[in-house]
Amino acid sequence: MSTSSGIDEREEGLSLQPKFDASGLVTCVATDAATGEVLMVAHMNEEALRKTVSSGEAWYFSRSRNALWRKGETSGQTQRVVEMRVDCDQDAVWIRVEQQGAACHTGRKSCFYRKVEASEGGGAKLSLVDAERLFDPKTVYRK
Amino acid sequence: MSTSSGIDEREEGLSLQPKFDASGLVTCVATDAATGEVLMVAHMNEEALRKTVSSGEAWYFSRSRNALWRKGETSGQTQRVVEMRVDCDQDAVWIRVEQQGAACHTGRKSCFYRKVEASEGGGAKLSLVDAERLFDPKTVYRK
Repeated sequence: MSTSSGIDEREEGLSLQPKFDASGLVTCVATDAATGEVLMVAHMNEEALRKTVSSGEAWYFSRSRNALWRKGETSGQTQRVVEMRVDCDQDAVWIRVEQQGAACHTGRKSCFYRKVEASEGGGAKLSLVDAERLFDPKTVYRK
Repeated sequence: MSTSSGIDEREEGLSLQPKFDASGLVTCVATDAATGEVLMVAHMNEEALRKTVSSGEAWYFSRSRNALWRKGETSGQTQRVVEMRVDCDQDAVWIRVEQQGAACHTGRKSCFYRKVEASEGGGAKLSLVDAERLFDPKTVYRK
């Protein structure tokens, strides 16, 4: 990134200048290219971003495992990138993907399998929605 | 959050137990309820999350301004929440919204107005897509 170019170049320019956070990551939202459903929110470091662009398959950086991670390398549930976009300040990317099987490690297609609603007492309550499992995580991850 | 409940309760239970990061924030993805387009990625602190659930309007926490922020309070470009979901580990929420006007501070409907593609030299190139401005930020924000 060029420090002299400033906000305008990052927001209006046509060069990729990712704004990595203190941990060296940008946020990535993956949606189903066919349905628009949000499948997952994860992170990419510089290498994951580069490999995703060049290979057309989603790569992420796992904060919990502190490791680069090709989506589906253990589970087989890969993501083929149909389109990638970057947001105004370049600290987030959006990929529209063809999801092989399920995106979530719990076996659901999407990580967002619970709806949040206001409850009568003033708090929030959750309910399951689109929560059927497409695979058994105990088998796939050999827990 | 109950520390005794562990991962299973947070992933499989029906109580909202947001996993705020070190700055007290969760990630929020807002999509257009009609088209599935990702409009923006932003953050919510506990108060923004609570106000969003109770009011049905999107509230965020601005990291740059370090302040709670009702979406559209300056620009008039509010977001009515049609549905909210939480992800498996409860560190991200997804809201499907009816966007009044444009979500992006640059005046575009979505913050994701640039496509990322592999370039021949091995890097990446951007191109504008769905980038027409719905309002003039200089007027709206009186810069």
